[in-house]
Amino acid sequence: MKRRLLLVSNSTLHGSGYLEHCQQQIKDFFGNDVKRVLFVPYALHDRDAYAKTARDKFKSLGYEVDSIHEASDPVEAVRKAESIFIGGGNTFRLLKCLYDNQVVTEIRKRVLEDGVPYMGSSAGTNVSTISINTTNDMPIVYPPTFSAIGLVPFNINPHYLDTDPNSRHMGETREQRITQYLEEPDTPCVLALREGCMLLVEGDKATLLGSTKARLFIREKPTVEYETGSDLSFLLTDRL
Amino acid sequence: MKRRLLLVSNSTLHGSGYLEHCQQQIKDFFGNDVKRVLFVPYALHDRDAYAKTARDKFKSLGYEVDSIHEASDPVEAVRKAESIFIGGGNTFRLLKCLYDNQVVTEIRKRVLEDGVPYMGSSAGTNVSTISINTTNDMPIVYPPTFSAIGLVPFNINPHYLDTDPNSRHMGETREQRITQYLEEPDTPCVLALREGCMLLVEGDKATLLGSTKARLFIREKPTVEYETGSDLSFLLTDRL
Repeated sequence: MKRRLLLVSNSTLHGSGYLEHCQQQIKDFFGNDVKRVLFVPYALHDRDAYAKTARDKFKSLGYEVDSIHEASDPVEAVRKAESIFIGGGNTFRLLKCLYDNQVVTEIRKRVLEDGVPYMGSSAGTNVSTISINTTNDMPIVYPPTFSAIGLVPFNINPHYLDTDPNSRHMGETREQRITQYLEEPDTPCVLALREGCMLLVEGDKATLLGSTKARLFIREKPTVEYETGSDLSFLLTDRL
Repeated sequence: MKRRLLLVSNSTLHGSGYLEHCQQQIKDFFGNDVKRVLFVPYALHDRDAYAKTARDKFKSLGYEVDSIHEASDPVEAVRKAESIFIGGGNTFRLLKCLYDNQVVTEIRKRVLEDGVPYMGSSAGTNVSTISINTTNDMPIVYPPTFSAIGLVPFNINPHYLDTDPNSRHMGETREQRITQYLEEPDTPCVLALREGCMLLVEGDKATLLGSTKARLFIREKPTVEYETGSDLSFLLTDRL
């Protein structure tokens, strides 16, 4: 399988600029062969402003950005794309818009069959997985399904947040929310990516990158912590 | 309209027991005429344990609890109910299960036409409104729609949390999430209930109760803070 993915937890890390914390990994990922990146700004309301933000950042790294919202035919834009980047925002709005524009199947095909490099951050990481069931976002619109692009066979929880023992807030912790998901039948495992880390997938090999650890939730098993550099390839093959 | 609702932000307030912070309002709401409460535990996985928690608490307040999950015919249980209480947990699981058991329409009819008192807390408050679009929960299952029981014509965000200026977490704040909802077309206003407050609705009169303030979000207008005791009846009549 030609699949190449860079799935980033968060677009901005506290105290640094947009995509600054992962810019070395972005350059390593797209490399020198890719010249143009197809950007998908569907997760935010102001797509023009969002495309400008992405364009400015990628230009500084040596890549030109085409935004899918400026294309007359979004499916054709995906067919021609050298590489794809789906940015963060609201995951429900993003997924609905991907279906409304009929690009879900085409993106899957391009990435899995043609080897087009795919980068996602935050909501763009959520939609790359099997489903959006483990997004943190508010369900502001109703997508036709929670099934997503399916570039990997498990779920990711981006922006993973450890429980704050001093909090007085009584809403569920992130750990409780993911545990509730795993109470449902036939749910796959959930890779919880703390802000600062990301998953690199190359074919059947998956590696944790970045500055923070990830936590893996599996049904009816204790959670496991993984350090930067960990080989997580087993997530791609086994059904855990 | 006979409608009587007690819509509580949170089931447990930091430092106190289950429903302890609102027990006086519960007694005032159900009064002496109601003897039995139909409890809906669908938002949590372990319904038996959840029903026991609710049963113990309501017994201490002088009410008997029948749990809908113990009824052979849930619709019939709603038809016979003297009063209804839907507890918190995961809003998606709750709404899906209400539809699966075909009780959404029956609850609406009983409350709006027959004047059966309805209490909700957290997820039980979300499903009482026009839709679950402003829940904080993780979308662990896919309900057939986000439209909910519709006992009031607006949205509520329970467990409302003010932005923490010292946070280093880069996920969207609650304010940003609600603002994203209001960017979508034709969205109604959102009453954000901080933990500790609740909305009492009696016919066409709505009053804020409890120990904390509420914040009202309206499309393209500044938000407004409301103190305990505020008359919020305008939410029931005007489309804001």
